[in-house]
Amino acid sequence: MVKHTPRARAGHNGEPEFVETLRRRALVPRGSGIVLGIGDDCAIVRPRGAREDLLFTTDLLIEGTHFLRDTHRAGDAGWKALARGLSDIAAMGGEPRFCLVSLALAEWTGARWVERFYDGLLELAGIAGAPLIGGDVGGGDRMACDIVVGGAVPRGSALRRDGARAGDGIYVSGRLGVSALGLASRRGAAWRRHKRPEPRLALGRFLRRRLCATAAMDLSDGLSLDLYRLCAASGLRAEIDAPPVYPGATLEQALHGGEDYELLFTVREGIRVPERFQGIPLTRIGRMRRGEPGRVDLSGAPLHRGGWDHLRSAAGARRSQG
Amino acid sequence: MVKHTPRARAGHNGEPEFVETLRRRALVPRGSGIVLGIGDDCAIVRPRGAREDLLFTTDLLIEGTHFLRDTHRAGDAGWKALARGLSDIAAMGGEPRFCLVSLALAEWTGARWVERFYDGLLELAGIAGAPLIGGDVGGGDRMACDIVVGGAVPRGSALRRDGARAGDGIYVSGRLGVSALGLASRRGAAWRRHKRPEPRLALGRFLRRRLCATAAMDLSDGLSLDLYRLCAASGLRAEIDAPPVYPGATLEQALHGGEDYELLFTVREGIRVPERFQGIPLTRIGRMRRGEPGRVDLSGAPLHRGGWDHLRSAAGARRSQG
Repeated sequence: MVKHTPRARAGHNGEPEFVETLRRRALVPRGSGIVLGIGDDCAIVRPRGAREDLLFTTDLLIEGTHFLRDTHRAGDAGWKALARGLSDIAAMGGEPRFCLVSLALAEWTGARWVERFYDGLLELAGIAGAPLIGGDVGGGDRMACDIVVGGAVPRGSALRRDGARAGDGIYVSGRLGVSALGLASRRGAAWRRHKRPEPRLALGRFLRRRLCATAAMDLSDGLSLDLYRLCAASGLRAEIDAPPVYPGATLEQALHGGEDYELLFTVREGIRVPERFQGIPLTRIGRMRRGEPGRVDLSGAPLHRGGWDHLRSAAGARRSQG
Repeated sequence: MVKHTPRARAGHNGEPEFVETLRRRALVPRGSGIVLGIGDDCAIVRPRGAREDLLFTTDLLIEGTHFLRDTHRAGDAGWKALARGLSDIAAMGGEPRFCLVSLALAEWTGARWVERFYDGLLELAGIAGAPLIGGDVGGGDRMACDIVVGGAVPRGSALRRDGARAGDGIYVSGRLGVSALGLASRRGAAWRRHKRPEPRLALGRFLRRRLCATAAMDLSDGLSLDLYRLCAASGLRAEIDAPPVYPGATLEQALHGGEDYELLFTVREGIRVPERFQGIPLTRIGRMRRGEPGRVDLSGAPLHRGGWDHLRSAAGARRSQG
């Protein structure tokens, strides 16, 4: 998955080169059953003889970065840990199959907190059909969780970031900026959405099966950064208009706010995209074009990449590794 | 995998109950393709139509617990992170297929350290045939790494902890106590073995294919604790004599020292076990018996479970969660 590591580190000097180096060094031998390694929401693995491809994603949830001890309940943290991983499975049109959870427990995480963390996690695991099948536990200074989600798609059918073609329409689900609004206001429906994001699993499968989407990814780090990544992966540029904004959020939050966990996808011209899927708006925001790979123009002017940077935004932000 | 969480937490009051509760709550629906969930070295997943079962394990490597910043080089930490996961694959007789790595980077982990961490990790990944296919990066107070290793065995053939039968011979590979000796002495071959353990992958496959081992697990937490787990999982007790001790190590280190990453296995009476496999001694230490599940007798007297407890042993040990 590209998260290793541009998601966390885009904007840090030197880091993209490091990731590119790592990706080159991590070259996968032919015949190993690895369809896709570092570079997308999930890695894709083809087991011998299987009718399906398996998807794997890992996501860290770290105290101070992805949740705040003071404002997030344990159950919310557990829900969000899994939701982040499930959203990556949704982005590829996959069906979740299982999860594993590694926990580094801080001094303050008592038995009740841990139990409630699992309450939230297992609640979503039950809804999503991703039973917990393993993990590990250790001690740390901050509470940190690494979630692994395994999913599946029919062989060869995973939605990837690199499949968009010139002329394809660009769409987003939902109304953007809700998570940033929730984090800023700490109240109401937006705050609940921030704490308990709902991975778009059914929508992801709909995009794969019915709309034959050419590319898809989840909006975890903000539209401006994530659309750049989709364009760069597909070797194209994009022209967009303002995306749909969540009531009360600003355009800035909708463009650059992270953690909306909506889906960004491209569809060939001529395919009819419904206005809604299970109540979630699907909005055309622009079109893929030939040109400078990764460039995004909003209403005719270049859009800067101001997306969420987990490290830069972290309470305990680390200095650049570059 | 049982690591979730008895491996890390055995001996903490209340923790076994918590794990048992978690295991019950994490019940896996029928037809989901999950052959084995929480409770062994790896989880076992059967993809639809596949001729093979997939194995998954996650292992945390945390600064101050599993490696020390002052004494472990970055490359050694990267090697060890992956070796821990590969050892779980070896314990099930599996062939590694891929790995994913999530890194929580501490303030002190600069670009060079991270690069060298990957040097060590990718060196072992290349040797073991487990290409790096993804991961995540975030920031933390201590450096922590969660490694995921995926492996495979022919359908239905994974070696588990729960397959031992009364009358089976009990064996260990290698000479035990080397890692504890290395950690205590900080020099020589034992120290090198502590820093760069060699997962017994070829041996694991040999146990599965040639010896039809009835049960196996890796010695990550010490013979006394790990044999207890194998006995408890198989519903049997064990009678053993002193295991082979690494030259210079004490019997105490051999019985209770963790991180040897040798294999503990059981074989039916009548199957000839060679004295060595690829230069590694294979030593019969006792026999499985009917009786109180989990009980281990050494030379006729009950053996206390003094195995490695990562949390209790950690520099920054956390209080019990129980």
